[in-house]
Amino acid sequence: MAALEAFDAVDLIHVKRDRGELSTEQIGWLVDAYTRGYVADEQMSAMTMAIFLNGMTRREIRDLTMAMIASGERMSFAGLGKPTTDKHSTGGVGDKITLPLMPLVAVFGAAVPQLSGRGLGHTGGTLDKLESIPGWRANLSNEEMFAQLRDHGGVICAAGSGLAPADGKLYALRDITGTVEAIPLIASSIMSKKIAEGTGALVLDVKFGSGAFLKDIEKSRELARTMVGLGEDAGVATSALLTNMNVPLGLAIGNANEVRESVEVLAGGGPADVVELTVALAREMLALVGQVDVDVEAALRDGRAMDKWRDVIRAQGGDPDAPLPVARETHTVLADRDGVLVEQQALPFGIGAWRLGAGRARKQDPVRHAAGIDLHAKPGDTVVKGQPLFTLSADEPERFPRALEAVEGAWRVGAPGEPVQDGGPLIVERIGR
Amino acid sequence: MAALEAFDAVDLIHVKRDRGELSTEQIGWLVDAYTRGYVADEQMSAMTMAIFLNGMTRREIRDLTMAMIASGERMSFAGLGKPTTDKHSTGGVGDKITLPLMPLVAVFGAAVPQLSGRGLGHTGGTLDKLESIPGWRANLSNEEMFAQLRDHGGVICAAGSGLAPADGKLYALRDITGTVEAIPLIASSIMSKKIAEGTGALVLDVKFGSGAFLKDIEKSRELARTMVGLGEDAGVATSALLTNMNVPLGLAIGNANEVRESVEVLAGGGPADVVELTVALAREMLALVGQVDVDVEAALRDGRAMDKWRDVIRAQGGDPDAPLPVARETHTVLADRDGVLVEQQALPFGIGAWRLGAGRARKQDPVRHAAGIDLHAKPGDTVVKGQPLFTLSADEPERFPRALEAVEGAWRVGAPGEPVQDGGPLIVERIGR
Repeated sequence: MAALEAFDAVDLIHVKRDRGELSTEQIGWLVDAYTRGYVADEQMSAMTMAIFLNGMTRREIRDLTMAMIASGERMSFAGLGKPTTDKHSTGGVGDKITLPLMPLVAVFGAAVPQLSGRGLGHTGGTLDKLESIPGWRANLSNEEMFAQLRDHGGVICAAGSGLAPADGKLYALRDITGTVEAIPLIASSIMSKKIAEGTGALVLDVKFGSGAFLKDIEKSRELARTMVGLGEDAGVATSALLTNMNVPLGLAIGNANEVRESVEVLAGGGPADVVELTVALAREMLALVGQVDVDVEAALRDGRAMDKWRDVIRAQGGDPDAPLPVARETHTVLADRDGVLVEQQALPFGIGAWRLGAGRARKQDPVRHAAGIDLHAKPGDTVVKGQPLFTLSADEPERFPRALEAVEGAWRVGAPGEPVQDGGPLIVERIGR
Repeated sequence: MAALEAFDAVDLIHVKRDRGELSTEQIGWLVDAYTRGYVADEQMSAMTMAIFLNGMTRREIRDLTMAMIASGERMSFAGLGKPTTDKHSTGGVGDKITLPLMPLVAVFGAAVPQLSGRGLGHTGGTLDKLESIPGWRANLSNEEMFAQLRDHGGVICAAGSGLAPADGKLYALRDITGTVEAIPLIASSIMSKKIAEGTGALVLDVKFGSGAFLKDIEKSRELARTMVGLGEDAGVATSALLTNMNVPLGLAIGNANEVRESVEVLAGGGPADVVELTVALAREMLALVGQVDVDVEAALRDGRAMDKWRDVIRAQGGDPDAPLPVARETHTVLADRDGVLVEQQALPFGIGAWRLGAGRARKQDPVRHAAGIDLHAKPGDTVVKGQPLFTLSADEPERFPRALEAVEGAWRVGAPGEPVQDGGPLIVERIGR
């Protein structure tokens, strides 16, 4: 009944369109009425574009986040008997950090309730990667999740649709209406799910650079600060690391190959950048629950993290010893001259892996677990003509031409002494108390 | 098939969101794809909000207008053997000018193809007013319209849905998404229909003030200039008058009562402001087709305009002698003191008449032809305590309280010598060559 509604959607659009501030009551009504279907998608599209262009105050963003939490259920791990600490990454190319990180943190007695998503477009999804492991299942009941956290200290599973359903509806709308990159909308989307999830502590890996969805470091910093503020306001101990995503993370981009690389890290090896970020995030997650000066690297060296990994994979039905899927076809690109690899752009390599089948174009599409790209050199490495630079893997060879088109011009072998792309540090800044 | 589309809607939204300029090809595709349903309402909502906030260049507005014309049929009066000249008003409270204007101009041999709309919200629609006349019908075939223009020189009828269908679809969307007042969107909406209609000349009555939908005179001036430019670019001789809509136009606000007032003007009487605007617009319409120094007032005094009115009403099945409907209930508001009427705000009186049943809240609602408000005094008039100030008419007495609520505080009797609301001229400026 229209007459019983507290506000009119067009009035609220006018407020934001005309650079006004929406009240707590107005935002609460808007999110609730949108979830109920009373406010139409067309109206919410206009509102999100107005928010994109005119912004929101901190208070409005907090109210939006709390309204999205209120649209669904809110979990609690209070009965677990140990502290909970979680990590969220804004997403990048080759970002498999959750896989080695969860068992590594669990080793030290904190519980890691990693509720994850699937990939869309060129950024992969943690659940897609883990589903390369034969038998592993992403969907757990709340009881199963709680039991696994209690018994093993870590879980990676699909976020139930009951958490912040307004966010799910709004995100799908933003995706088709060109309003994904608005900081108030990104921040409230991420934080509403994480706060509703019930974690006690949260570390945010906020990426910037060509392979991140916010290219600009200043915007990423603003996003990080906004999210840390939202977490603190909601009583979740929150910090953020601002990290570089101009170059792919590690050497594997895909699904099964990223699991393989994660297992290498858990075995004490793996690419230096993946190890560095895993260790830094683990320290941060533990520090937020009061564990400082923990020797995180030792758990990678002495097998404790690997044992935990095997535990939690088995607990979710996976066989950690089963062979991972391998693609039927590969195509290797060789260095065209002697010199130094001076460029390797994250975004084109992410798109290339996506076109090989590692990602999906539409939500309902399946992913090809064996598809992807393996890098054999990183920027700064000396190479000789004819040496393999990277290998494409796919089940269908007809996928290679469009993937090669994506990476064309995205890498370059230069003369020794030429400046190398993005020689800056991987972890640029910590934001938080 | 997505693969065959020239552009992607999200890419085009990003261009306008990021303050870029859309190409002619992009705008053409957008309007066509939206008309076909390939671009979704949600996407067009985000786009219109981006246009609202970031604007459009003259070139973009022209391309948008031409694309909306291209979405449907385009009429031509080339075979008529006489010049065509039309008027469009941006709408106001008590604006019945089309009714006396059309026959007045037709007296002088020009043809007036007045394709009109129905009212929505507090502004009335010309067709709704004329439908107060027993027998009169708004819907004519193209052949009937052409024949009437040839034989009588004037027609007021419903615009066919074949003219600029993209505009119809877009207008309905703007209405629910809070983007009605954007100048590029208003200008292209009005001008696409008028250019598609095929008139050779066009005079725009662009209103500003509390009862107009653009309150601000500067915005109204910008709208007028934009529309005159669009008309000239399309080969339509176009000019605009900028007119004051702070006070209701004339004394009648409604449907049947506005017809009654129009007939008074055609009989050589009527309120001074209605006569002034009718005469000025008639002169302008005739000047654009080369008839200057015409004694327009004479045709009102000597009965020629009235004869033409009776002709055209009869031609559309109406009986000019039939009594107009009268409301079952009236409620008269009296002056609360001796003094001068210093205030009479257009918008609240428009809303009051709407609540009495003169207008509709939803497109499919009927209007009550006898409902409305008759004013008995105008700002500046001396009044004595107990004298009638205005009369509400409705078929149901239960409508009075909410209508009275609308006009409460919208009128005031002040002491002699107090400044009177908006003593400025009715016609402020002419825009055009």
